[in-house]
Amino acid sequence: LGRAEAEAEAGRRAPSVAAVLPAGGSGERMGVPTPKQFCPILERPLISYTLQALERVCWIKDIVVAVTGENMEVMKDIIQRYQHKHISLVEAGVTRHRSIFNALKALAEDQPNSKLAKPEVVIIHDAVRPFVEEGVLLEVVIAAKEHGAAGAIRPLVSTVISPSVDGCLDYSLERARHRASEMPQAFLFDVIYEAYQQCSDYDLEFGTECLQLALKYCHTKAKLVEGSPDLWKVTYKRDLYAAESIIKGMFVLVTHVKVTSGALCHADRDLQQIILEPCYNFVCVNVMTSDFEETQKLLNMLEKSNLSILYPVVVISVHFLDCKSVPFGQKMEHLMQIRELAKEVKKRNILLCGLLIYYPQDKQKLQESLRQGAAIIATLIKERNPGLVGQLLIA
Amino acid sequence: LGRAEAEAEAGRRAPSVAAVLPAGGSGERMGVPTPKQFCPILERPLISYTLQALERVCWIKDIVVAVTGENMEVMKDIIQRYQHKHISLVEAGVTRHRSIFNALKALAEDQPNSKLAKPEVVIIHDAVRPFVEEGVLLEVVIAAKEHGAAGAIRPLVSTVISPSVDGCLDYSLERARHRASEMPQAFLFDVIYEAYQQCSDYDLEFGTECLQLALKYCHTKAKLVEGSPDLWKVTYKRDLYAAESIIKGMFVLVTHVKVTSGALCHADRDLQQIILEPCYNFVCVNVMTSDFEETQKLLNMLEKSNLSILYPVVVISVHFLDCKSVPFGQKMEHLMQIRELAKEVKKRNILLCGLLIYYPQDKQKLQESLRQGAAIIATLIKERNPGLVGQLLIA
Ligand SMILES: [Mg+2]
Ligand SMILES: [Mg+2]
Repeated sequence: LGRAEAEAEAGRRAPSVAAVLPAGGSGERMGVPTPKQFCPILERPLISYTLQALERVCWIKDIVVAVTGENMEVMKDIIQRYQHKHISLVEAGVTRHRSIFNALKALAEDQPNSKLAKPEVVIIHDAVRPFVEEGVLLEVVIAAKEHGAAGAIRPLVSTVISPSVDGCLDYSLERARHRASEMPQAFLFDVIYEAYQQCSDYDLEFGTECLQLALKYCHTKAKLVEGSPDLWKVTYKRDLYAAESIIKGMFVLVTHVKVTSGALCHADRDLQQIILEPCYNFVCVNVMTSDFEETQKLLNMLEKSNLSILYPVVVISVHFLDCKSVPFGQKMEHLMQIRELAKEVKKRNILLCGLLIYYPQDKQKLQESLRQGAAIIATLIKERNPGLVGQLLIA
Repeated sequence: LGRAEAEAEAGRRAPSVAAVLPAGGSGERMGVPTPKQFCPILERPLISYTLQALERVCWIKDIVVAVTGENMEVMKDIIQRYQHKHISLVEAGVTRHRSIFNALKALAEDQPNSKLAKPEVVIIHDAVRPFVEEGVLLEVVIAAKEHGAAGAIRPLVSTVISPSVDGCLDYSLERARHRASEMPQAFLFDVIYEAYQQCSDYDLEFGTECLQLALKYCHTKAKLVEGSPDLWKVTYKRDLYAAESIIKGMFVLVTHVKVTSGALCHADRDLQQIILEPCYNFVCVNVMTSDFEETQKLLNMLEKSNLSILYPVVVISVHFLDCKSVPFGQKMEHLMQIRELAKEVKKRNILLCGLLIYYPQDKQKLQESLRQGAAIIATLIKERNPGLVGQLLIA
């Protein structure tokens, strides 16, 4: 192969790719004042999850986000706070199509002040679809390189009908012959940029489908790719609930247990779990001491790490309550310090709880305590509820 | 007015109404082995919430549910356990349309063994749309009486496209001119029964739209009624998460606080809330005593009531932890009895937790304790997490 052919071959396999994220929507469908892309999930705005999903894909070079002027500062804060990389901001237009067009201009060669390199393929995604996987992004990019355009689709959940002007049924569509057009979509940059440059004001104002623009103005028939249910668009309040539950479900599997002494084999057996990375759950079992020395060391370590930037980290400080230990008042005064500690680390997105495991003489009662302790730990990890921060629980 | 006219007038205002609920689906879209209508939300099957929504509407006389033979016993158990009324069961067909047809036959006059009265109007709903309100049911019934057929619609969330045989975009539909057809729908019984009797095997096998059958076989143009977002169909696992969050959100406002003495005015002020009915949250503040006597009385009362049949009832037994109280071991042994108590009432769907409010001399620390106590109570009520049942929490 000659050099030109080799480069062409390499280009065929790995086109340069950028992504465009229109985020100018106003969220009126949600029934809340905050535009949906800025609604918090575990206190982090939805759009940050979507950016995270795109930026972890190493072959996406640039991400251009279109936001309205009034949300520009909000967006800059989000990028800084959650340390997002490779993001460029452009001003959103009054419609989705105009926002996308503005973002494409930032990637084009023919615009003044453009600092970004023109990509071969551009992905268009939605700020409110946070669960997009690398697999489907790659699929639409490869298909776009071959066909000029490609988009994810899903089966229809409801039958689609057309109303007549008097609000009655005109006709219904055969559900099996139609699909919902979802995101992500991908295009050869020259195709979609040409389509936007050609397209009418009517299309820019009232159109909803980028694939349609590529078809109408560039005669490019988009390849359709079956996506997963997770590609759905967060549209209503219930979708935020669903997204939060999905994200919480991701935390359950990964827990780090730090035992400050191996002496208490019963607790060890019940609480110790496999250590995996990345880890957002820490159980600190304070066997030899009833104070927070070991927990404090763990908290210091976590505060120095970047672990809690993206997700809340749960730390459970486990203490054993010997039934013979006295005096009670003094001990409680001491343990209640956890409140101040928790309040402090909460600022860094660390959710600290205390768990007292009641340690009676009776072996069966002890087993019951340990069983309940494990149940509490599982609940705290799963729910990540700020309402329980700084609390002491007794098992 | 003559008698016949008066009756006609009454009938015009209040037609006799029955409802049909096809529940023969297999739930393959959910990615779980249980058909979605039987998936639990707070341990109660989804279909029971839908039945509850229909049976609380006093003017729906009969509810006919179509279930597969293999789920017939499951369904009978659900009806008995949750005390559903006015339900008749018929065997589901292999498709949704065949199931609906079977249910209509049970309401028709021309069938042998039919014990139900033929209604003037029949509602067709979905087992997996639990949040249907009386308002929209009434709207479709009134519209059906006037137009012969009516159905709820919603705006499309995604653009609808049609693929060509090679999996490429053939055309996309204008989103503003189309709607998603949702449930409930309503029909003059004679119209929809006639349509099902006339319709082809192909329609029964592959059709998805009842409104279309009424149009095709009875030339009845259905009136379309804008529904609320809550009418959506629980289809995927995320929809179960969303439904659970919506149901949990209903509990937050209604809490009954029982204070066994008015002596502790601080706690009183912070915890007392307005008493409303129906109530699924009970906070029992045990001021004068550290044992469970008063809580036990409340539990006895709740066990005798039917309150916990449909929803889990949360009971929080609040105790004050005087820092001078000794001996600690003895006190803990006593308080740990809550585990056994909780295990017992859990069988009756009562979720019992203990809350110890630390009661130091320092006024500011006491305020902090009460504030945290209120936060814990709010969390327990909102989350209704069985993982915290039988636990003691310390504020
Ligand atoms: Mg450029
Ligand atoms: Mg009958």
